[in-house]
Amino acid sequence: MDRVKRFWQLDRAHVPDRVLVTDPATVGYFTGFWCQPYERFVGLFLFRDREPVLVVPALEREAAEATGLSVRTYTDAEGPENAVREAVGTARGPLGVEKHALTLDWAERLGEWLGVSRWVDVAPQVRRLRMIKDAQEVETLRKAALVADRVLEAALQHFRVGMTELDLVAELELQARRAGADGMAFSPLVLSGPRSALPHGVPGPNTIEPGSLLLIDFGIRINGYHSDITRTFAVGSADERMRRVYEAVLASQNAALEAIRPGITCAELDRVARQSLADAGYGPYFTHRLGHGVGLAVHEPPSVDGGNDVPLEPGMVITVEPGVYVPGWGGVRIEDMCRVTERGAEVFTGYPKAFTVLS
Amino acid sequence: MDRVKRFWQLDRAHVPDRVLVTDPATVGYFTGFWCQPYERFVGLFLFRDREPVLVVPALEREAAEATGLSVRTYTDAEGPENAVREAVGTARGPLGVEKHALTLDWAERLGEWLGVSRWVDVAPQVRRLRMIKDAQEVETLRKAALVADRVLEAALQHFRVGMTELDLVAELELQARRAGADGMAFSPLVLSGPRSALPHGVPGPNTIEPGSLLLIDFGIRINGYHSDITRTFAVGSADERMRRVYEAVLASQNAALEAIRPGITCAELDRVARQSLADAGYGPYFTHRLGHGVGLAVHEPPSVDGGNDVPLEPGMVITVEPGVYVPGWGGVRIEDMCRVTERGAEVFTGYPKAFTVLS
Repeated sequence: MDRVKRFWQLDRAHVPDRVLVTDPATVGYFTGFWCQPYERFVGLFLFRDREPVLVVPALEREAAEATGLSVRTYTDAEGPENAVREAVGTARGPLGVEKHALTLDWAERLGEWLGVSRWVDVAPQVRRLRMIKDAQEVETLRKAALVADRVLEAALQHFRVGMTELDLVAELELQARRAGADGMAFSPLVLSGPRSALPHGVPGPNTIEPGSLLLIDFGIRINGYHSDITRTFAVGSADERMRRVYEAVLASQNAALEAIRPGITCAELDRVARQSLADAGYGPYFTHRLGHGVGLAVHEPPSVDGGNDVPLEPGMVITVEPGVYVPGWGGVRIEDMCRVTERGAEVFTGYPKAFTVLS
Repeated sequence: MDRVKRFWQLDRAHVPDRVLVTDPATVGYFTGFWCQPYERFVGLFLFRDREPVLVVPALEREAAEATGLSVRTYTDAEGPENAVREAVGTARGPLGVEKHALTLDWAERLGEWLGVSRWVDVAPQVRRLRMIKDAQEVETLRKAALVADRVLEAALQHFRVGMTELDLVAELELQARRAGADGMAFSPLVLSGPRSALPHGVPGPNTIEPGSLLLIDFGIRINGYHSDITRTFAVGSADERMRRVYEAVLASQNAALEAIRPGITCAELDRVARQSLADAGYGPYFTHRLGHGVGLAVHEPPSVDGGNDVPLEPGMVITVEPGVYVPGWGGVRIEDMCRVTERGAEVFTGYPKAFTVLS
């Protein structure tokens, strides 16, 4: 409940006295109750002057009550109206909600049930809160990164030249299950040869050929939290150009990791990596932002891009992932996730980064 | 574009002259353009008196234009406002939308940009349209079912007594990739022993023991369409009770499959299966609905339950999945997906259903 307390302290002026949280990740964040409700209603009501109430379908009662929170349930036959009315009482007025996580059909029903005079978006406050990870979150994210390291290592033990991109995707997924992941953070990217330069490439049934680059970008999910790592390898053999590009990307990433400290802005950090690649002559080939926050979502604030003046703060967990993409030739990206601390970056993902030829 | 034409013919009285479709599955259904946009805006505008316009992020331009539709794009820096205004023009008035697929933040912006006087939910009309599958959809669903059959067969070739539930989940996912599936229809259910009786059980690291039941419920996704199949096996050895329950469930399923014909209502079909199990003495142990529609969503209308008076029509694709769940002992469910035709059910899933002991 510390997180709820911090929420109420965050922005007194812009947050109404009653708030409904419906993003399943945010509900989990505040309560420890994780649920993907699909079309059913799951909501956490927060009140400035009293304890929160969780409204869930009857079949989730046990899990919801395990949180120790006050819980109201409903059956499919009843629908949530009475549970919601009981949770909130008869007060009318504005309601804080996460506008990206409330659909028009629910908003219409809730608006009527609760006499909502105005919808106030509290998503910015929730995002700000979630941006700074507490000790428990750091522990989980560290573990998620460690599991990703192990999964990559285990999967690559089954690597052979001539296997397909999709075979390697399947191997990553298999090893993730074995390693105790709850699932993948996203559908793994395994792209080889010129395909590794495609920003929106999708792994295919094509074989991974000797003499080509192999880009692997994946992560796992554990207790609601995500990891995210990218490594790029040469397959079978490597030429001078591969090495040169690889070393330039690695130097850029190291420069950025070393520049991380409280107070540097996202834009400044992005610039450090970009300048390093520009100095090596690859400036035009780095075509995306440097990184993003990671947590309950794989992509969450802060966005580490050239337009974001948010300063880094201790407790933020971000990715640092410069890349060079040469159309028709291939791409190299190296990505780690790390925590911002008072003394600089604590890198969570530890898989080796020395240039490696797989065979 | 036949589907768009059919949409406009469906319910003249309740559908405004301009409609915005935002459910990614519905956009794909009408256009052949498949996209999971996450926080970005993707929308298909349909007009009663002119051609549709698709609004997508710039990075999706090529894929969107491949549909042959009129396309408007926007960059992240611009945002979609101008593209949306250009697509729709200056008319004001009501807008048809899928209310379950439009969040409050987008509704507020779109309402302002387009002078929306009233939001009209057209989700019921879209659902009705999607409920009757056309020839191309039937072909894809048939293929999705066939691939699921093969995946189950391939995965069970790696079955061994003492492997864990999660190992078998991983094997299903691996074989699905190999068989060319785009992904799983949902996270596979593999539940053994007394766990097979848990309606909301989740596969775990526990080993699959000899003398126990093993329930496998999964499906795959291909070109946006889903399959769904359940088989239950005995492991190592079987006792009389397992056989008796299994045969009762199979008889119930066969009774329902044989009762399928145009005109029978969902409720009546549900009753056929339920009566069969009741006659065998297992009535109280069949605790869920008989089935559901399958298509672009794994669960879609019609819901085959005792409260749904919708009559079956040729072109509907539904699951038939009776089950018997005995707390503390185990559960048996047998599920097939089939198409309603003029002459009865065409069963898509063909994996054998004779009582089988795996070893």
